[in-house]
Parts: sequence; structure tokens; C-alpha cells
Amino acid sequence: MFQTFDATTTPETGGPRLAALRSAMQAEGLDGFIIPRADAHQGEYVADCDKRLAWLTGFTGSAGFCVALTDIAGVFIDGRYTLQVRDQVDLDHFTPVDYPKNNLGDWLASTAKDGDAIGFDPWLHTKGEIDAAEKHLAGTGITLKPCDNLIDRIWADRPAAPSDLMVPYPVDLAGKSSADKRAQIAKGLRKDGNGSVVLTQPDAIAWLLNTRGTDLGQTPVALAFATLDDTGHATLFIDPVKVDDALRSHLGNDVTIQPPEQLGPTIDALKGPVLVDKSTAPVWLDARLKTAGTDVTYAADPILLAKAVKNETEIAGTAAAHIRDGAAVCEFLAWVAAQGPAPDLTEIDVVKKLESFRVATGSLQNISFDTICGTGPHGAIMHYRVTDETNAKIEPNNLLLVDSGAQYLDGTTDITRTMAIGSPPAEAIRAFTLVLRGMINVSMARFPKGLAGRDIDPLARNPLWQAGLDFDHGTGHGVGVYLSVHEGPQRISRVSDVPLQSGMILSNEPGYYKPGHFGIRLENLIVVEPASPLEGADDREMLQFKTLTYAPIDRSMIDVDLLTKSDREWLNAYHAEVYEKLAHVCSDSTKTWLKGACAPL
Amino acid sequence: MFQTFDATTTPETGGPRLAALRSAMQAEGLDGFIIPRADAHQGEYVADCDKRLAWLTGFTGSAGFCVALTDIAGVFIDGRYTLQVRDQVDLDHFTPVDYPKNNLGDWLASTAKDGDAIGFDPWLHTKGEIDAAEKHLAGTGITLKPCDNLIDRIWADRPAAPSDLMVPYPVDLAGKSSADKRAQIAKGLRKDGNGSVVLTQPDAIAWLLNTRGTDLGQTPVALAFATLDDTGHATLFIDPVKVDDALRSHLGNDVTIQPPEQLGPTIDALKGPVLVDKSTAPVWLDARLKTAGTDVTYAADPILLAKAVKNETEIAGTAAAHIRDGAAVCEFLAWVAAQGPAPDLTEIDVVKKLESFRVATGSLQNISFDTICGTGPHGAIMHYRVTDETNAKIEPNNLLLVDSGAQYLDGTTDITRTMAIGSPPAEAIRAFTLVLRGMINVSMARFPKGLAGRDIDPLARNPLWQAGLDFDHGTGHGVGVYLSVHEGPQRISRVSDVPLQSGMILSNEPGYYKPGHFGIRLENLIVVEPASPLEGADDREMLQFKTLTYAPIDRSMIDVDLLTKSDREWLNAYHAEVYEKLAHVCSDSTKTWLKGACAPL
Repeated sequence: MFQTFDATTTPETGGPRLAALRSAMQAEGLDGFIIPRADAHQGEYVADCDKRLAWLTGFTGSAGFCVALTDIAGVFIDGRYTLQVRDQVDLDHFTPVDYPKNNLGDWLASTAKDGDAIGFDPWLHTKGEIDAAEKHLAGTGITLKPCDNLIDRIWADRPAAPSDLMVPYPVDLAGKSSADKRAQIAKGLRKDGNGSVVLTQPDAIAWLLNTRGTDLGQTPVALAFATLDDTGHATLFIDPVKVDDALRSHLGNDVTIQPPEQLGPTIDALKGPVLVDKSTAPVWLDARLKTAGTDVTYAADPILLAKAVKNETEIAGTAAAHIRDGAAVCEFLAWVAAQGPAPDLTEIDVVKKLESFRVATGSLQNISFDTICGTGPHGAIMHYRVTDETNAKIEPNNLLLVDSGAQYLDGTTDITRTMAIGSPPAEAIRAFTLVLRGMINVSMARFPKGLAGRDIDPLARNPLWQAGLDFDHGTGHGVGVYLSVHEGPQRISRVSDVPLQSGMILSNEPGYYKPGHFGIRLENLIVVEPASPLEGADDREMLQFKTLTYAPIDRSMIDVDLLTKSDREWLNAYHAEVYEKLAHVCSDSTKTWLKGACAPL
Repeated sequence: MFQTFDATTTPETGGPRLAALRSAMQAEGLDGFIIPRADAHQGEYVADCDKRLAWLTGFTGSAGFCVALTDIAGVFIDGRYTLQVRDQVDLDHFTPVDYPKNNLGDWLASTAKDGDAIGFDPWLHTKGEIDAAEKHLAGTGITLKPCDNLIDRIWADRPAAPSDLMVPYPVDLAGKSSADKRAQIAKGLRKDGNGSVVLTQPDAIAWLLNTRGTDLGQTPVALAFATLDDTGHATLFIDPVKVDDALRSHLGNDVTIQPPEQLGPTIDALKGPVLVDKSTAPVWLDARLKTAGTDVTYAADPILLAKAVKNETEIAGTAAAHIRDGAAVCEFLAWVAAQGPAPDLTEIDVVKKLESFRVATGSLQNISFDTICGTGPHGAIMHYRVTDETNAKIEPNNLLLVDSGAQYLDGTTDITRTMAIGSPPAEAIRAFTLVLRGMINVSMARFPKGLAGRDIDPLARNPLWQAGLDFDHGTGHGVGVYLSVHEGPQRISRVSDVPLQSGMILSNEPGYYKPGHFGIRLENLIVVEPASPLEGADDREMLQFKTLTYAPIDRSMIDVDLLTKSDREWLNAYHAEVYEKLAHVCSDSTKTWLKGACAPL
């Protein structure tokens, strides 16, 4: 099993560890210390050795930070984690703080004392973060002070850093050689008058060098830093234990390999101006460049957009991964359907069963994130992750929401299906149909080139809006190719003004959540492509989406009277395609089930 | 007739006038002079005495400017006017320049010579404009120099400035006293720490002081400037001939009246910081405040948003105006329908007939803009204004597009209907139906509070997008109450991020244009209101639109098969309401026609 269900922390350890931290603060002459969830790469996942926030506080959410002062320790968490934090931390020692309603600077200004020095590890915070906090602290007499990481000093049994190999990712899967990618990014550097760029995000480095790894499990990357200059020459800073001859041979002469301790001296000698993404690069980097007297250009990491626009090979690989994954999901959906009334089935049983079908493909590298499997009210918790403690029996006459994904060598998947268990209430069927209509609106969208995700987002919501409903998350996020399941810069969201481009892969996942009752989400991955020729169309350049995900949508949850004619045509055509693509790769019993699940409405 | 059809300028006068301007430039030691279309108030309409651009060049478009150098004179015009400018200016003397593709600064940098001094009238340009140009001129040695207006010096028979009275606008139409409005704006000044604001837009002053005028014809305002301090005291700067006892009595003791020449000295003594809207205030103001050493806050004119959110009285007045106007429009539509094949009817005949029906209401103060009446290919010219030269016979078996509006004391209207003349081609019927679907999508919209026009805009376009079509203008603009027919800040447009608020009036006017063939536009005014209670709705706060415009939509242009069930329900309900509201105020023959025009589909 890739997914685990145990609680990895316990509240009891918080008190003693906090006391140890305070001793370390005192020894260092500090009045506080900040412990973020992030590592030096600011990604969604962190290695066990970097789970400092969880180790100290017990809180395991995917975002947040703790500020330990001498008499109070605030744990900053966003709305998703208000309940979870209270279960996981010892409230005698830690105080939950609503974030971003309360920000670091303002909280310190009102909680710490004039003259207090608050330590932070400059590798774990971005310049953007520290700048914002210092702005709020202006005139307070409270200062932020970069220092060694005090958690690392007191964490006796800290796990070792991952030591797995960084491995080559073959060009027949990547579709473009690393040399070509480096030339592409170097050209952009020259065009913008930059001498070099420092890369701090492992998935950006993985894309640029055509490498992968297993340091973060569900995101197949190796932890490293890199620089690239305007001639296309790269230097990779990586633990030597992660490098073998195969990697050396793959990287060739235009990529220099250095141990991590060479990053500083190399940065000192970098050709300026140096491009730094201040939303992701450690503030350490900025300070080092300033000390060296090198010009800095603050801009978005240029690899973000280049990586987001997939080439034909990547799209073909992702399509193949989706057929494979769709077949596994169909086996799973058929199994769920076959359970009938099964009073002892739990959420964990469902997660295990789904993973087993993916393992059976023989190609699964990992799941792309912990499966969200919520029965009844658990379905309304958007980021629910089942543990042994929360594990619930599948509720009859309600909904089961399963959001999951897989990492295959040729592509990353992410799919959500919501299923009827027994006879759900009429209001759930109505809401499901409206969510489906939103998803269909996006699937069928055809729109002028130049528009961004925010121009598409209303189409996903309008059917819900008409009924006085909505959902409080974006409609879609970018997805990598055997890389991160959440990537930027493209999104389908009210706040995304990045123009959509042919080749971008996104999720299309409207939902509806009735807290305490049920949750609905439907999710397919889609790829942007040029709009197909259409009789009578203007000659303006337009784009459309091609759906990549194949798996039936529960017909028993659809109120056909609420669909328009074109909604119904889309759904029937989609289901016909699902059957055509998957029937021959499913088991016989699943094929029989699939026939019915894909019958026209 | 309010509307005229004559060409008010001729190309022949351009050469001699340009020569006179160049003499004046030489006398002043200048190498160039900028002549904008704008007056000191930066509004959409200008008085005859301010039509300097038209006087010099012959170009009468609603936006643009001329830059006269010693050897070239560029006339900067946007895409709407590329054809018109070539008809109106003498191309031997004037050179059309595409704007904003070419901006003032860059054009000067590449056209003028190092050391050239280019004069401009600081009353006719905003700080935003001049700042932008100077940024592009940095390092060129070319300078912009404020000076007297050289056109005014050479324009021998320049019309006198308007001298009509500024008149009180009764509180039973305004819905809120000027004192209350001044207190409201003053409170905002105090909240933001500003001491006063300078008001340079006549419609802002008209709203604040509850006054109107006739200086600009179709926009019922008097030209003036004003200041307001944080106690709610205002000073109005206005030509004394425009002031009578009625106005003095209306304004009362808390509004000081001063002649325009007192504006400068009063500004010198203003309590700072002074709020200045640098997108509309003359750069003269900014320079004067700097000289006086007064602190300036650059921000949006606070009256813009206050004026945009209409009170109940204003909404009721606008609704009443729309019933009156709708009845006149129905008489007109019935008349068009009754013409049948009428080979000698022209666009001007149609415009005159429409105006006559509005005059017959006995309440028409003016039209709210020159009626756009385009037959066949003229319909595809978005801002077409018919003149004696362009006047065309109404094309059989094609479309007639009529976009018009009226100024009544209680409200401003703006309505577009596109009608079949004979049997238009099938593609026009299909496109009309898609435009109608977009308009219905907006009409039926219900959306969470906090969203802006850009979140609604895609709903208007999606039916067209699906067919590979689109239109190149915004979906809607703000509309005043017996004020400007185009007002901000609210819009339904890709670029509008101003949250929509209950009480804002907007147009809802999607279209489709096939150049050389036909144009389609349908336009109703709508007002934002809290969403009606709805069974099963979430408890989130939502808004909706109420349609204010009543007039039938040509049923013969609708392909019913392309409508969804809810589109059809909306249209039938709308037509039923049109009949119910208007039948009793129409003539008998029109009532009979209306019955058929509003029959369910």
C-alpha cells in the first residue's frame, strides 16, 4: 500500500518538545522562533526529515506554521484545518490562530514585546513572506533574525534526508531533450536581459533536466537546487549519494554536478542579473546575491510556464496513462456497485480496494496524492483524508465521494467520482445534476485565444448559481506529466489571469458540499487544444478542451429533466467513448457492468 | 429634431488652419502642439466651443487627438475610426496614426527631433496621460511644455461657451438631498484621511449638488468645477451667467458659488491631503497643488461609485422612464413592421420617426445619444451614425439595427433592437438566436455577492463561443439617472473587476457583426438587486438582475430549436410582461401589433 491510515503524530509530545525549543531559543538569545510546514523548496509535499511543524506541534496539515514565543506558541492554520488542528495539538501548549485572517507580522506586533528578536531559518521562508512580515512589524521594535534551524538542533531521532537516486526520464516520454529545454529557457533569459536563473523547485529541475526521483513519494522528484545561465549551461546541486553513472551520462557535459555545499560559492559567481522567483525561492538566496553585489530580477520562475505547456509526446503519454487508469477505476466502480448493501464496508476498505486495482495495472509508480474517500458527511470535508480514527462505515442511502490519482511513468492522473450508495435524497440528485452541468459546460467550452481560467470559471458555476448554490474552491488546477498533480501557473479560478494555451493540462472539478450531510465533486482532466473547425465559425482563433479522463458518471444520480439537450448529447457521447476506450481493457464482469453504466440517457 | 444628419466639418479647411497653427507655434517658440478631442472635463461629449480637434482636422469621432509638428500632423484614432478619419481629414496635410498601437510618447520619440518642445494645454490633458508620454520620452531630449491653447488663439469664429442655466434637480427625483450626499462623500474623505476633493466631471457635480443643465445636449449637465471638503462644504466654480436665484436657493449656505477664475486661488488654500483622480483631472490641477505645497492623494473620484449605486427613488424613476420609452419604442417597432416592402425608406427616415414617437410622449428632454440606425452592412459598423452622405435605403431581406435612447427627467434609457426586414438569411437568424441566448443568460444570472462584471461577461458570450463566434465590445456599461448614458465604474466586461452592487444600472447588450453583411445587437437595461428567495438555496448572499427595458424582441428572428427550455420560458415571461406593462399605454393599432409580437413561442 502506498497510502497509510495511521496518525503519524500525537499531541502528547508537543509540550516537552516545545520546552526543548524554548531552551534552544534562550541559548541562542532569541525570544521566538518560526517553524513553517514548508521545506527549502516550498512544494506541496515534504520529506520526513523536513516535517518539523508536525514533529513539534503534532499538526499534519499541508499548510501552516508555528510561531513559538517564550510564553505562547501560535499554530497558524487556514479554514480547512480549524477542526483538525484541535485534534492534533496539545491545546495547553499551542494556540490555534486563524490564517490568513491573522498574518505573521500583525500577530507578532500584538503578541511579542518591543525589542524581541524572532529567529527564522532563511532556507525555509521566501523573500515574499519575510518582506510582508517586516512591513507589518515596521516601527514595533520587534525584529526577524535569520539563524540556524533550532528544530534540527533538538530533533534527536530526526529521519535521514532521502538518499534515493535521481534517475533519468527518457526523452521518448519527455518529448523534448534537456538540451533543447535548456536552450529554450536560456533564450528567454537572454531576451529579458538576465544572465542566469536559480531554480529551487524540484519539479522545475526535473522538467528541465529530464530527471525524476522518489524523495517525496507521491511527487516523483529528487530534492535538489540548480542554476542555469544564458548559454544553457546548468549546474545541479545534489547530494552525491543520489548520483550514479547513469545520471551522469544522461546529464552530459553541459550540466555540472556539484554537492549542495557548493551552491553558495557558485551563486556568488553567477552572471547577473540573476532571475529569482520571490514567491518560491528561499530568502537565503536573495541575501547571498545581495552580499555578492549581484543584480537581481524578481520574476516568475520561467520554467513554470514552459512546463505547463505540454508537448505532443507528453499529451499522448498522459492520454495512455488515462486509459490504463480509467480501466482500473472502472474495475473499482464496478466493485463498489457490486457491494450492494454491505454494512461493514469502511472508507479504508474502499481506499485499499481502489489502490489494489491500480497496482494490478503493473505500471503504478505511486498514487499522486492520498485518496480522499468520504462517505455521507465526510464527503463535505473537501480535503478529507481517512485515518484509523476517522474511518467510517459507508453510509447507506447517501453519497460516496472518491477523489484519487495515480503516477505512471507516462503521465499523472486525478479523477473524482461521486456515487450513490442505495437511494440518496432527491436534493443530492438535483445538486449532482447541477454539478455535472457545470462540468459539461467546461468540457464543451470553446473560447477565443487569450482568455484565462477566470473567464471559464463562471461556466462551471452558472448552473449551481441559478439554483442559489456554489462551491468554495477553484474549478481546476494544472497537472504535470509524471510530476506534481498540482502545478501552476494555469488554473480555472476566479483569480487566474494566465492566458490558457494549447497543451496545458487542467482539472475540471466543480462540486457542491452540504456540511453535515454530503459532498459532491466530479473531476476529469482536460487538455487545451486549438478549437476544431466548425461550419459558420468566424476566423478568430479559438481554443477548446479535450477530456483525458475516461470513467462513467453515476447515471442513477442524474435528473435528466434538468439537463439541456446539448448536456445530454455530451454525456451520451462521453459515455459511448468511455465504453469504446475501456471495454476491451476491462475484466469480463466489469465490461458487463460498464455496458450498463455507459448506456445512453 | 434633436439628432442632425449633416456633416459638420469638411476636409478643405484643414490645410489653412494647420498653417495658422504652425505660425502660432513658431511665435510661441514651440516645435509642436497637441490637440485632444477632450475638454477640461474629459467626458464623452464636448460643447461646440471645445470641438478643437474637429475644427482643426475635420475628424469628428468621439475619441482621438492630433499632434501637429512643423512638418507632419498625426491624427491618432482607434480601430472604430480607421475608415472615417480618411473621409474627414485632408490626407495631404494630416496623417492618420493607429492608436493605441502607437502611443503619443513613442510616436514623438521617433518623429520629433532632439531638443523639440511640444506644447500642450494643461487643462485638456490628465496627469495620467502626460506622465505616460513623458515616460516614453525619457532620454530623448524631446520635452512636453504646458502653454496657452494655440487653437483658441487662431479660431476666429469660435462659438461662445454655453451660457444656459444650471438648474436644480428636485429631491423627489434624486431620492437623496445634496446635503446628505455631501455628508456621505465627506465621511469617506475623513475615513481615508483626506481633507478635500476636487471634482472635475460635470456629471459627478450634477449628482452631488442635485443639479442638471443643457451644456452638452445629450448629457444633461452644466459645465463646472467644484471642491468638497471633509465637513461637507462645497464650492462650485461656474460662469455667473449660469446661476440664478433658484439655483442659489437650491444650493443653500453650505455651497459657495464662485466664478471660474477663483478656482486657482481656492485650490491654493484647500485643506490637504487633496484627493485627485489622475485619470480624469486636468494636469493643471496637479501642478497647481504641487506649487501650493499641498499633499495630494491619487485615487478614484469618490463620487463615481456613490453615483453608480442608485437609490430606490432613482430606480423607480428609471423604471417609469422605461415604461414611457418602451411605449414609444413599441409605436416605432409597430410602424417599422407596418412598412412592409417600402423601397424608398431610408435610415434617416427611420431615425426621425423614432424620435417623433419619443417627442410625442411629451416628456422627452433630449435623446441620450445619436441613434445608431444601420441597415444591412451598416449594422455591422458598431458606432455607425447616419449622415446625409451615408444615408442608405433600408435593405430588404436583411436586418435593421437600431440602438437609441432618451433622456427623461426621471431616467435615462438605452435600448437596441434588431429587426428582420423581409426574409433575412438563415445564418442571421441563427446568430440572432445565439445573441439572444447570451442576453437571456445575463438576464437570468444569479451570482454570489462580490463578483464583478468580468465574471458575468462569459455568460453573455458562451452561446456565441460554442458556435465559433464572438463580439468585439463589452457586454454592458453603467447608465446614469437623467445623466450620462455611459458611466462607470461598473461594467460587464472582461476588464472590469469592480464588484457589482445592488442598485447599479447596466446595459446588457451582446451582439454579433458580420462585416459587409449585417449586424445584430440586443440591448436591455438591467439593475442589480438582491437575489430573490429560492427554495433549496444556500445561505450565501447572492445578487441578480432585474430587467428595466420593455419592448418586444423580433420573434421572426428566433430559431426556437436553438433555445433551451429555460431560455424559452424567460422569453415568453418577458414578452408577457412587456404586453402587460405597455398595452394600456400604446395606441390601439400598436396594441394589436404588440399582442402578436408578444405571443408565446
